Formats: sequence, structure tokens, C-alpha cells
Amino acid sequence: MFAGKADLSPIYRAVADALIERIDSGDLLPGSRCPSERQLASEYGISRMTARAAVSLLVQRGYVERKNGSGTFVASPKIELDLSTVAGFSDRVLRHGITPGARVIEARTVGASELDANVARALEVTGEELVHVLVRVRTGNNELLALEKSYFPARHCPNLLDNELTGSIYELLRTRCNLELAHLHQRLEVTQLDALAAEVLATHPDAPALHITRTTWDVHGRPIEFARDLYRGDRLLFVTDAPAS
Amino acid sequence: MFAGKADLSPIYRAVADALIERIDSGDLLPGSRCPSERQLASEYGISRMTARAAVSLLVQRGYVERKNGSGTFVASPKIELDLSTVAGFSDRVLRHGITPGARVIEARTVGASELDANVARALEVTGEELVHVLVRVRTGNNELLALEKSYFPARHCPNLLDNELTGSIYELLRTRCNLELAHLHQRLEVTQLDALAAEVLATHPDAPALHITRTTWDVHGRPIEFARDLYRGDRLLFVTDAPAS
Repeated sequence: MFAGKADLSPIYRAVADALIERIDSGDLLPGSRCPSERQLASEYGISRMTARAAVSLLVQRGYVERKNGSGTFVASPKIELDLSTVAGFSDRVLRHGITPGARVIEARTVGASELDANVARALEVTGEELVHVLVRVRTGNNELLALEKSYFPARHCPNLLDNELTGSIYELLRTRCNLELAHLHQRLEVTQLDALAAEVLATHPDAPALHITRTTWDVHGRPIEFARDLYRGDRLLFVTDAPAS
Repeated sequence: MFAGKADLSPIYRAVADALIERIDSGDLLPGSRCPSERQLASEYGISRMTARAAVSLLVQRGYVERKNGSGTFVASPKIELDLSTVAGFSDRVLRHGITPGARVIEARTVGASELDANVARALEVTGEELVHVLVRVRTGNNELLALEKSYFPARHCPNLLDNELTGSIYELLRTRCNLELAHLHQRLEVTQLDALAAEVLATHPDAPALHITRTTWDVHGRPIEFARDLYRGDRLLFVTDAPAS
């Protein structure tokens, strides 16, 4: 099966798909032990090398995880984030019954000239105009899921940072500063966590990650937020819905 | 700078951001040599270890690429795909002046019972109902960018596979079978290319990749396509726009 380079449906992918189907259907439960290579080889009539390739694919896709010395286990289902609404992390995870949280790493107000040029340009700020900088680790049910670095022109919400900053900032912008958010543009890049981000998120370096650059405008077309977020790809999946244009 | 675990803006990230800014602004052109660690160390007044960390981050993010033995070079800009429209790969790359193409790997019609349960469920097909299976490598300006595996219930477009299959299938569905596509749901998972997919896409295994599971419905709410796509994260970036709901 491995001879033809053009064969895109080799046995190991079919076996991986069958295992994903068993995980999705609840036949294999989160936390339970994944069938061993020997079991898979016998059950599907494949070589152990093929079984190993199938399991490696499941590890890459985040369906199972290896635990040092004790084998391979079915991973918890990934948490779904809907990218097609004007919403922040809190609203997106709440939708799925997950409790959002945040640990504030940094919250300060700086002059626009201290920002890199991309941030200043996106927010249309110049010179000594003040900008709030907020860095947070975002959690879902206390699990570390994302690292957010957000910038807000201070003039639209001068006292933003005086609030409790462990919940939804969009909610604060709406309720404390009467801002009506209307449009969100996101640019998604697939990457891996670098060593430092992995340490902050308490996972392994090289874990797959989604780097999202995000700009949010209000109903008057003013940029209200510019953000660079790093989302753990091993614990999150992302959905989008597109209606006919 | 590296002492505090909570410090998320260490020097190497600031240097990486400065280099990204220089790439985005055209100061460092695609194909040109990236400043060496020694140059960066001297230019930014940092250690060579810090310079190395900055360059590694740029490699992970796909802004520069290492070439064996000859150093580090600025990568070509990534091709942008807009995920927030009901469109296929062809339309999405055409928008940016890139010529789309496809190499057909597999095109055949099978009975629903041969499909895995997730595919049959998504397409609402059962038993011996016929389904077209189409596997293609998608290209942009002849560069290999994605691997698509699509399924179409045959009853909506019986002769689909008799057409030239190297262009937009959505276009064929519209023009040959009068189908009006109305809604697209996409589920995005961040992963790495496995060895086989990397070989087919002529890139390195472990390249970051986006695995998209896609369902498309027509105006009557009938599922017309179910697909599993693998997009090269080192050559593509993805954008979404969300209007206020």
C-alpha cells in the first residue's frame, strides 16, 4: 500500500479514520487506553508498522495522546471556537458550556510610539496617543488554552484597565464604554508553539497552534481592538459558517 | 529577559516582530538572505542565542526558510484564502491573482456503504446510493498547496466526473447541474503534515497544516459536498470576516 506515492488512501489512513469514527461515536471514551499496535494489527489485519502509522496520525491530529511510559490514550474532545461571529474568547467557549477564565499577565497603557508599526497602523494611532495593552492567558474550565495580546486605543475607553479583567473585554467595551462592535477581521496562520509560549500554556513545544491576528471595528468603522492570539491546536478546533454572498 | 516565565514579550519576540515588520514593508524581499545571527546580534544589541531564538520563531511562523547549507532566506508571501465565503479553492486563489490548478489523483463513483459512517451521515446517503469521490492536489501558480478529498451524492449531478476536473467543481455544479450552493460549514483543525501527505505535496513532513472538514448545502438545504482537505500552513494563510450578528 505504501509503494505508490499517488495513493492517498493507504491502509493507515483508513484505520485512523475508523478509529476517529469510534472516538466520535463514543465507542472509545476520552481517557481510555487506545488499542495497542498489536491489537490494531490483529483487529484490522495489518502490519504493526501500519498500525503505528495510524496511531501516529491520530496523535498528530490530537485524537489520542501518548503518556510517557504508560501508552496511548484517547484525548478529551477539543473545545470548539466559532470564528464566524463578532465575539471574543469568553462568548465563544461559553456557547459550549465551558467556563471561560483569564490570568492577566500584563495590563498597562503606553504611548503609540512604543508600539510596533503594524499595531499602530491597524489602530490608526500616532505619536503620543495612549493605547491599552492587555496580555492574558485564556482558560476554559481552568485548562490553559490561549495566549492573547490585545491593544485598544485608550480614547474610546479610557478606564478600561480599571475593571476586573478576567472576563469578557468585549462585554466591558459594550457596558462600560458604550461601544458597539460591528465587524471582526481575522487572519489565521498555522504554526507551532515556540518554547516560551509552550511553557506559559503548560504544554509541549512544537504543539500545533493557530496564530490569529484580529482587528475589531465598531459601528462607526473605528478600530477598537487589534490583537495577536496564539491558540493551542491540540485542545481547540475552530468552525466557520459562510452563507451565500 | 528569559528568567521570568510570565514575561511574554521577551527580546527574541520583539526582534522577530521587528523582522516581520521589515518583511511586510518590503525592506527585506522574498528570496533575499535573512540577516545572519551575528548581524542581528550586532544590529539589535542582543546575544547570538537570542538572535537564534528570533530566527527560529520566524521559521516556525513561515516568514523565513532555512536552505541546507546555504543559510536562511525570506520566504515568498503566503497565499491568502478567504474562508468566509461560499467558494472553493479556485475562486479563493483567483481573487488574489493566483492561477488555480488541480491534479486529479482519484475520480470514481462508489456505493454509500463503502464510505465511512461520518461521510455517509454528512451527505445523508445510505445503502447503495451512489457517491462521487474526487481526490485532487490543488495548485496555485503551479505550486502544490492542498490535498482535497471530496464526496458528492451522485443523484444531484450524475455526470459530474465526465467533465474536465482540473478547475472549479463548484462552477461545474452550478453550470452543468443547476445547483445553487448556499451555505458552507467548515471545521478547522491545526495539525502537521504526515509523511505521506508531505510527500504528495512535495514539502517536509511536520510542516504545519490546516485540516478542514467542509460541508456545503444548496438553497434547498440538501448536502451537496462533504470534503476533507489538508492545506499547507507554510504556504497559505486564512482570513475570515465576521459582521455583527
